[in-house]
Amino acid sequence: MNVEEIYIWESEVRDNETDLQGIVNNSNYFIYMAHTRHKHLKMLGVDFAEVAQQGYNLVLVHTEISFRDSLRSGDLFSVTSKIETKGKVRVVFLQKVIRLSDKKVVAEATNTTTCIHTQTGRPRFPEGIKKLFWG
Amino acid sequence: MNVEEIYIWESEVRDNETDLQGIVNNSNYFIYMAHTRHKHLKMLGVDFAEVAQQGYNLVLVHTEISFRDSLRSGDLFSVTSKIETKGKVRVVFLQKVIRLSDKKVVAEATNTTTCIHTQTGRPRFPEGIKKLFWG
Amino acid sequence: MNVEEIYIWESEVRDNETDLQGIVNNSNYFIYMAHTRHKHLKMLGVDFAEVAQQGYNLVLVHTEISFRDSLRSGDLFSVTSKIETKGKVRVVFLQKVIRLSDKKVVAEATNTTTCIHTQTGRPRFPEGIKKLFWG
Amino acid sequence: MNVEEIYIWESEVRDNETDLQGIVNNSNYFIYMAHTRHKHLKMLGVDFAEVAQQGYNLVLVHTEISFRDSLRSGDLFSVTSKIETKGKVRVVFLQKVIRLSDKKVVAEATNTTTCIHTQTGRPRFPEGIKKLFWG
Repeated sequence: MNVEEIYIWESEVRDNETDLQGIVNNSNYFIYMAHTRHKHLKMLGVDFAEVAQQGYNLVLVHTEISFRDSLRSGDLFSVTSKIETKGKVRVVFLQKVIRLSDKKVVAEATNTTTCIHTQTGRPRFPEGIKKLFWG
Repeated sequence: MNVEEIYIWESEVRDNETDLQGIVNNSNYFIYMAHTRHKHLKMLGVDFAEVAQQGYNLVLVHTEISFRDSLRSGDLFSVTSKIETKGKVRVVFLQKVIRLSDKKVVAEATNTTTCIHTQTGRPRFPEGIKKLFWG
Repeated sequence: MNVEEIYIWESEVRDNETDLQGIVNNSNYFIYMAHTRHKHLKMLGVDFAEVAQQGYNLVLVHTEISFRDSLRSGDLFSVTSKIETKGKVRVVFLQKVIRLSDKKVVAEATNTTTCIHTQTGRPRFPEGIKKLFWG
Repeated sequence: MNVEEIYIWESEVRDNETDLQGIVNNSNYFIYMAHTRHKHLKMLGVDFAEVAQQGYNLVLVHTEISFRDSLRSGDLFSVTSKIETKGKVRVVFLQKVIRLSDKKVVAEATNTTTCIHTQTGRPRFPEGIKKLFWG
């Protein structure tokens, strides 16, 4: 399935995100990608905060990231997100962090998510999201 | 090679680390594991800040994490670190985040690192670290 | 009123908290102090997460911090918290961040908090907390 | 002195910045304002990372913030910065965080900074910055 071709979020490095090596701390690529996933979902009509209030937690179950280069203070970058479903309870986000100045892929990731029904603790998507991803 | 059996760091969740779902934001497991790697290295005589000042950046090149459960506000946890070398320029950290109350493995990761000589931009370890890991 | 003499939390700098100057980014002192306030409240029987679930948000309304020195990678520190009430809806935390190696006060703060009843949007404390602070 | 009328930075809340109350954790207003100060300085020709490399640390010595409301998931906001000098070694940033939807001032701050010459540990600005602020 191909819900949406590709969603792209653009931003810039904040100095508090760099570490004593002068490069962006890896945890921030993680944060950038999560934010882009939420924005991507929102564009598809799924609001992360609302889903949480309804008793469902959208969670990451697996991540695999290759770090190819580092962003630095002041760098502009984009983060891409492409969605694929996997079985009946997995939504996979293929994501890249790209430095805008030279189009270099700084990080590339496969982020696998699911939805946990907080009352039962089991994977289950609300109807709206289920329909969106599995038709 | 088995530099050191297992290094363990213990800590507790800070409320700013939880998100609007009431669970720890995944980026923090990433931060916990990085901190534990630095502590593990320090115990072996490698100081992250000093290495940076000498013109070498210890960097993550690949991470693979399985998230099995979530920590919550106030939870105590431990993070483990076990080192394996891979080829001549890769140091792999096998890591787990464990909730102390029930010993549940919350996250399990394979974090692959290298050392970049900042002047040349190429992988190269300072002599001391090289000796430590490859004898 | 003097609810509790002084609460003290001890911890150590994590490398992700330092910035490209090699010193701890100021936002972290803020986080350390908030965590210490939550721990102090918990010791007094007030759980931040539970209070939120009951429809009350404990919030900071004013902060004043003097930064006298900087913590660095690996530094151990303590954060103190002393509570004073101010009028009927203000709880003031007098706090210090102290470097353990030389007992130097790195940051000193007056943090003024209140409790917002989320339904009405007005300052109001749950009965239990009211009794605790105003007897 | 009035170096520059007002510098404005616009952004949006990232979900990892909200806490279990569903509102932005206060430490983030701190980060937003620091980023805006750095952007303001950069516009005036002062690069935070370069200054650090030259052996000078631009640091906050005092902050006073009034928190009047809270940003939530998805909120757009702007942060303003207005510079005033104070004596010969203090640069004061008057700053506001404003929610764009209703122009409400969410936080208002007076952030006082100086420049530390890392070798001597004493307040001293590099010539270029000195000229910029004190003519």
